[in-house]
Amino acid sequence: MPKYKLTIAYDGTHYGGWQVQPNRISIQDLIQKALKVALRCHTPIVGAGRTDAGVHALGQTAHFEYPDSIDLRKLSASLNGLLPLDIRIKSIEEAPPGFHARYSATGKTYHYHLHLGRILDPFKRFYTTHVLNAVDLALMQEAARLFIGTHDFTSFAHEAHQGSAARDAVRTLRRLDFMTIDGGVRIEIEANGFLYKMVRNIVGTLLDIGSGKINLDSIPLIFDAKDRRLAGKTAPPQGLFLFKVDYESIEITSNDSK
Amino acid sequence: MPKYKLTIAYDGTHYGGWQVQPNRISIQDLIQKALKVALRCHTPIVGAGRTDAGVHALGQTAHFEYPDSIDLRKLSASLNGLLPLDIRIKSIEEAPPGFHARYSATGKTYHYHLHLGRILDPFKRFYTTHVLNAVDLALMQEAARLFIGTHDFTSFAHEAHQGSAARDAVRTLRRLDFMTIDGGVRIEIEANGFLYKMVRNIVGTLLDIGSGKINLDSIPLIFDAKDRRLAGKTAPPQGLFLFKVDYESIEITSNDSK
Repeated sequence: MPKYKLTIAYDGTHYGGWQVQPNRISIQDLIQKALKVALRCHTPIVGAGRTDAGVHALGQTAHFEYPDSIDLRKLSASLNGLLPLDIRIKSIEEAPPGFHARYSATGKTYHYHLHLGRILDPFKRFYTTHVLNAVDLALMQEAARLFIGTHDFTSFAHEAHQGSAARDAVRTLRRLDFMTIDGGVRIEIEANGFLYKMVRNIVGTLLDIGSGKINLDSIPLIFDAKDRRLAGKTAPPQGLFLFKVDYESIEITSNDSK
Repeated sequence: MPKYKLTIAYDGTHYGGWQVQPNRISIQDLIQKALKVALRCHTPIVGAGRTDAGVHALGQTAHFEYPDSIDLRKLSASLNGLLPLDIRIKSIEEAPPGFHARYSATGKTYHYHLHLGRILDPFKRFYTTHVLNAVDLALMQEAARLFIGTHDFTSFAHEAHQGSAARDAVRTLRRLDFMTIDGGVRIEIEANGFLYKMVRNIVGTLLDIGSGKINLDSIPLIFDAKDRRLAGKTAPPQGLFLFKVDYESIEITSNDSK
């Protein structure tokens, strides 16, 4: 059955997150409902990963199967007509038979925005974390280097990952850069994969290092302990953006809507 | 009585506009309520100008009088603590006795954001106008030049300005520039003053020129007619930002919070 890949941007402010769940509106659910109207057929979608309530996406990806060929340009216009303005289908492409939005992904990049000025820009209140205490950015960047490479990230994963039942928590962090932006910093973080809450726990730990709560030297010990309780706080969701999901370059019929 | 000048940024999305009015929450009212709590005294404020519902501000200004000297840094922190996150006091300064936020202003700059791409960025849905039809930007820029200078802007003012009771509608437009931004254009428009709805009516007329609805040659005729009905549509509020209000440089105690 032909497979199709969606690239999606959304403002996560008003949603319970990506994934379908009881009692809260999810982005996945709204896209599935729009697909059902547009294709006249219940069409489940599989996302590259979950994003939590309040987390945003500039390049989330998902796939779905559909028995027939599709006019992709028309489908994209229909979906964007049916969806609320805070969820946009950026492109739909035909994907090869073996494609899977989650399992075929070779890497992901997240951005985390920190506002460091005294007064928060009113337009950024849902899109950045306002750091009210003084932080040592140079120290945070020094600490960031300790996260690069292949590690067991159990200490920076959600509590569900702890203990004997834990799944493999080894990930390779390729990049953790600090980019200066108006009023603060954008942390860009790229890995072959992320554990649940991993970005927010790394950023929270970096903030705790920047404010002196956690010592730089203890980072290797925190990794070794494989204990979430030793790492820093979980940074709030609103600063986090799923920037892009990478795949092996594949021959696909593109319908980029840019 | 000492006078104080406020510089204010706000996201106008959820408000009925700047000015106090029945049945809708206004930005002016919320700031006055915060001042009343912070100064323990009902303190009316006078804004440089009204902004309509949905219109934003990066540099609105206002003044108020208060019998005593004030710890401006503390007041700024108090007000920002009391106000919702979509209204921020950027600075408070002591102003000279003759200062008046509206009458002392020597000019104002507005920005108007147009999104020209097929798919609207979900993060810009309240901050730009999505132009869905094709428009000729070069023609719009050519038309923009015809607005520069001193004119009677009656045809580009709100209907309330029409007819014999009309107030003086002569204004000097100093600048009307098109800046290329990600996904579209930011129109920057500066004048010694603006009539009610003037920016939105000029932008709407430029859009009608860009789409071929209004002919470039008819602009001088529209000015001469002094008739709102001949000009183009009123562009929507959400693309509009009051960028700054200019004053003669004055010796003041600065408390810029940047």
